[in-house]
Amino acid sequence: MKHRFEVLVTLRPGLLDPQGKAIEGALPAMGWTNVRDVRVGKHIALTVEADSVEAARAQVEEMARRLLSNPVIEDYRILDAREVPA
Amino acid sequence: MKHRFEVLVTLRPGLLDPQGKAIEGALPAMGWTNVRDVRVGKHIALTVEADSVEAARAQVEEMARRLLSNPVIEDYRILDAREVPA
Repeated sequence: MKHRFEVLVTLRPGLLDPQGKAIEGALPAMGWTNVRDVRVGKHIALTVEADSVEAARAQVEEMARRLLSNPVIEDYRILDAREVPA
Repeated sequence: MKHRFEVLVTLRPGLLDPQGKAIEGALPAMGWTNVRDVRVGKHIALTVEADSVEAARAQVEEMARRLLSNPVIEDYRILDAREVPA
């Protein structure tokens, strides 16, 4: 069975985020002055073929930890999976 | 009231995603051969101060369309907001 997962990789709190600051800097010129704490991270979608959703999720967890994120400076979160047609 | 939103910006289907391909290329060497269709996008978190969550969400929608994404090549999705302490 194929399962589609989404992984969110975010910079840890306290670390400087230049991309977020750039967006914050652009907002007032567009008329938005009520926005704070903009943080930019990654969104990764992928399809895993596995016997069960539990097995697929465990693998995504390991991939997120070992490949998709840098655990020193980033956190990750895995969104609920959905089954996809084979 | 302050509301924290998350915006996911993804490349439209059919468009070439070199970052996703790079991840896919790295997977077999780590023992994972059952992963397909890796797509890399952006995750943007931000705090909006507004009278209601509806007003805040409408603004995030407009920001996602006009600033955070490139509508020609990207789609966006807004995750449910949560209230944050003032």
